Amino acid sequence: MSRIPRIVILGAGYGGIVTAIGLQKELNYNEADVTLVNKHDYHYITTHLHMPAAGTDNPENARVDISKLIDEFKIDFVKSTVVQIRPHDKKIILEDSTLSYDYLVVGLGGEPETFGIPGLREYAMNIRSINSVRLIREHIEYQFAKFKREPGRTDYITFVVGGAGFTGIEFIGELADRVPELCREFDVDPALVKIYNIEASPTALPGFDPELVEYAMQVLSKKGVVFKIASAIKECTPDGVVLMDGEVIKSGTVVWTGGVRGNRMLEEAGFETMRGRIVVDQMLRTKEFDNVYVVGDCSIVLNEDGKPYPPTAQIATQQGEIVAYNLVAAIRNTPMKEFKFINRGVVASLGKNEAIGVVGDRKFKGTVAAMLKKAVDIRYLYKIGGIPLVIKKGRL
Amino acid sequence: MSRIPRIVILGAGYGGIVTAIGLQKELNYNEADVTLVNKHDYHYITTHLHMPAAGTDNPENARVDISKLIDEFKIDFVKSTVVQIRPHDKKIILEDSTLSYDYLVVGLGGEPETFGIPGLREYAMNIRSINSVRLIREHIEYQFAKFKREPGRTDYITFVVGGAGFTGIEFIGELADRVPELCREFDVDPALVKIYNIEASPTALPGFDPELVEYAMQVLSKKGVVFKIASAIKECTPDGVVLMDGEVIKSGTVVWTGGVRGNRMLEEAGFETMRGRIVVDQMLRTKEFDNVYVVGDCSIVLNEDGKPYPPTAQIATQQGEIVAYNLVAAIRNTPMKEFKFINRGVVASLGKNEAIGVVGDRKFKGTVAAMLKKAVDIRYLYKIGGIPLVIKKGRL
Repeated sequence: MSRIPRIVILGAGYGGIVTAIGLQKELNYNEADVTLVNKHDYHYITTHLHMPAAGTDNPENARVDISKLIDEFKIDFVKSTVVQIRPHDKKIILEDSTLSYDYLVVGLGGEPETFGIPGLREYAMNIRSINSVRLIREHIEYQFAKFKREPGRTDYITFVVGGAGFTGIEFIGELADRVPELCREFDVDPALVKIYNIEASPTALPGFDPELVEYAMQVLSKKGVVFKIASAIKECTPDGVVLMDGEVIKSGTVVWTGGVRGNRMLEEAGFETMRGRIVVDQMLRTKEFDNVYVVGDCSIVLNEDGKPYPPTAQIATQQGEIVAYNLVAAIRNTPMKEFKFINRGVVASLGKNEAIGVVGDRKFKGTVAAMLKKAVDIRYLYKIGGIPLVIKKGRL
Repeated sequence: MSRIPRIVILGAGYGGIVTAIGLQKELNYNEADVTLVNKHDYHYITTHLHMPAAGTDNPENARVDISKLIDEFKIDFVKSTVVQIRPHDKKIILEDSTLSYDYLVVGLGGEPETFGIPGLREYAMNIRSINSVRLIREHIEYQFAKFKREPGRTDYITFVVGGAGFTGIEFIGELADRVPELCREFDVDPALVKIYNIEASPTALPGFDPELVEYAMQVLSKKGVVFKIASAIKECTPDGVVLMDGEVIKSGTVVWTGGVRGNRMLEEAGFETMRGRIVVDQMLRTKEFDNVYVVGDCSIVLNEDGKPYPPTAQIATQQGEIVAYNLVAAIRNTPMKEFKFINRGVVASLGKNEAIGVVGDRKFKGTVAAMLKKAVDIRYLYKIGGIPLVIKKGRL
């Protein structure tokens, strides 16, 4: 009697959860043992984290209980932290147990990339999980409360966001909306609050349509954001940041959004990585082990020009669908599908009722783009949890 | 043509605001110039501060715009900070101007009394103003957020309240109610959270009925509070507190409620003081200057046994009424009234639906006492602002 194959999925981010949902739909009874491992018992919607980080939405609206998404009769869920991946032994070491697999899906997500800038790891906060955004939100409110006790300390109400990519810009948009509310709540003169956005590239939102980038900067500048573009952070200290040109910005709050790299465990497991990411084949497998699939921020997919696609929720979701398909194919010994990224469009929120977006060759800005952004959110929630989830998370 | 007398009231706490309201009711047009000076443009309800400090109520419900209480045609309001009182010159130095007076009412409130315990001034927080309770609330929430990032740091979710007097006990009651909410919000195991209440006296709530004190301690112990009674704080450090017996409690949050003294400016002005307070005569005047009245935490009134009444909102309110009466009498040259404290009862809240109270010779506990507490709140709001204020502050 042959044993049924064991599939282990590490991480319930976009890639992992979509893989799991795909498998639970497709696999027949007793066709495979599927185990999903995740640090938390919830999945979080990373593209929504900029809101709870700024305090403009409740963190609850950015997470979904895994038990609501996964059918426990079909998939085992293990709440634990992965300590080590041993691809030669086909084993996963968790903090409290060990798992064996025949097929592995690695969707452990990214880590902040600090590019070796001193102090960033120690003194800057990152938008990367429910816990981290609650920390940022509470940290910001605490600064306002502290400022009222020491009104000379304007550094308490000076906020530095490093990086003007997607996460940086979307967070800045929410923060700029939140500041007037916080000023009212804590009786602080809004003119005293400063928000800096610092980006080393020659433009904000590198790769985005220049006209829309210009629009985004205008919208955010009007809300009081000071941009320092083509200006790199030399060092982050407990008191703020020092820029390359020597300028010192005193600030109690530095949020670093300047880069994402893959999970360190991949290098430690012996995979060949670029900035912690694994370049996968067309089937989304590692080149070392064809039973190991990689999705999301841990993976790199190259486009026709041989350049990596930026790590986004969109690509991770599409990868999850293909990995689920290919796992079923591997088990049934039927043909696999090659992964092809389909760009369904990109929308960046700039706060309440403001956004910019590109879908196909059409550009959007303002309230129309903000509605598109909402539509993207709804589409994803619908995909993973149907109408009830869309309603529950208040997106309708 | 003789000049009309100038009355200056320093501080819009219970004593000051009630004096001002009494004068505005009683004085005729052009009978006196009344100026009320206060650091903020709002009056706050100190007896309610334990709730926003713990986060169980909005700070907005603990304050009232002075413009809502004072008729600007009858009383001038100056938003400023008092720097110096010069009773010989009949002048008040404000941070940005100078005021002259014929009659002065000092209601500048108290300051935390730290009894010289090292570190308390630097590292402990106090429940004393809207700004200070917002700081405590934000500080507590921030500790939960930080703990989620460093789950080994249980000191982040260990809370020390120094003092088991009224403020300490009422705050502890709210905090114990708030902790389960915070645990849910931040996904923290409630069993890890510790709340300590440390009191140097041989009993909690010294002076209160022992049976009710026992009841209060039972209620709060059931909510998880650990009492250390007859146990003094030797030192407060950035890492927590050291007790007299050498025990070290590691805690990121120390709230000191152990004592109140009068405002330092009184000593600096040359008044004779006891713990920063002025022993006033029966008309509530200083013995050095019969045109200077003192109310609230800056004053000491002795009972028949020659012992000071504890500083409470109740006594300050009664003092404000008498001072208003006596100022009018001084101006009109009619007989003054002697101050006699009327104990209308005492109620201490222990959190939601729990309280203890003594009215006359009757004792109350549980929900009945909690309703009494609410009635006391309503009575005061009604006194200063009528029904609209009671409704606005959500007490009905």
